Amino acid sequence: MQTVYILSGPAGVGKSTTSGALLRALNNCAYISGDDVSHMHVSGRQKPWESESELSLIWSNILSLTQNFVNNRIDVVIDYVTFPDEANWLKDKLKAFTINVVYVVLWTDHETLLKRDQMRTPEHQMGERCLILIDEFKESGLKNKHLLNTSKKNADDIHQVIEEILNNQQYKLED
Amino acid sequence: MQTVYILSGPAGVGKSTTSGALLRALNNCAYISGDDVSHMHVSGRQKPWESESELSLIWSNILSLTQNFVNNRIDVVIDYVTFPDEANWLKDKLKAFTINVVYVVLWTDHETLLKRDQMRTPEHQMGERCLILIDEFKESGLKNKHLLNTSKKNADDIHQVIEEILNNQQYKLED
Repeated sequence: MQTVYILSGPAGVGKSTTSGALLRALNNCAYISGDDVSHMHVSGRQKPWESESELSLIWSNILSLTQNFVNNRIDVVIDYVTFPDEANWLKDKLKAFTINVVYVVLWTDHETLLKRDQMRTPEHQMGERCLILIDEFKESGLKNKHLLNTSKKNADDIHQVIEEILNNQQYKLED
Repeated sequence: MQTVYILSGPAGVGKSTTSGALLRALNNCAYISGDDVSHMHVSGRQKPWESESELSLIWSNILSLTQNFVNNRIDVVIDYVTFPDEANWLKDKLKAFTINVVYVVLWTDHETLLKRDQMRTPEHQMGERCLILIDEFKESGLKNKHLLNTSKKNADDIHQVIEEILNNQQYKLED
């Protein structure tokens, strides 16, 4: 069945890398980077974590793009810090379509997250701020079944992670 | 009045550079690169100049994004090879909004276009293919009033070009 994959998780956890590998495993698919969509608003933009209207604009844009791709029978991979409320909102807005919505929150322990953050180019490093997002996820009502812990995984294990996302039914959002 | 700017013209004519300068002159604005939107369809993508359905998907996505930005009172700059029929289709789809749609086709003579193309990084150079697009524009029913000839302009003249786009009413698409 046609599928919309939401790859979420704190900054630095590996969303972009995992999205890239997932996209390579799909035949007809689109990639929506929430950060890219957010930065289309070039000037006058508020920080989305400080402005409800900015965040709402970003999600309107992600939704519109997703609807257009799904209408064209294209699978969609959304790469963005997405909390359970937002994932459920998106699924609800797509209910006219017969599709699966898979919601995966990539996860690591604090130590691994900080280590991965340090491996990024300096302008992408978030430092201790990564950990704030971990706490926000913990307080978001997130169900454990959506967590995919990659603390023990390294770059060679990416295929395993992709197999898991493609085949493990536990990540599907229920109605 | 709120405005949607469509910056068109053959490949290599300077759409991205001009878009960047236009965006810097606006207070609250969004940038939609048609090429970026096109490449969101990562696999299973057809070449838009060979596939009507792919081109139609791209324009659906550009339209949806534009509608969301306009709804949020944000000016929009669209950077894409856009023919008159496409510009008029977009204007028609936006008729519920009280906005201006400005359609500018950047233009140069053949010699200047080939010279600018050679100044791009090798992977972006199009060579003789630039000239094919010039012919397609000539056969598209494009009105002269939408042409902005930059053959005699160089990088220092960019502010003049932006003033022209912002203030010269001739580029507005009529009802």
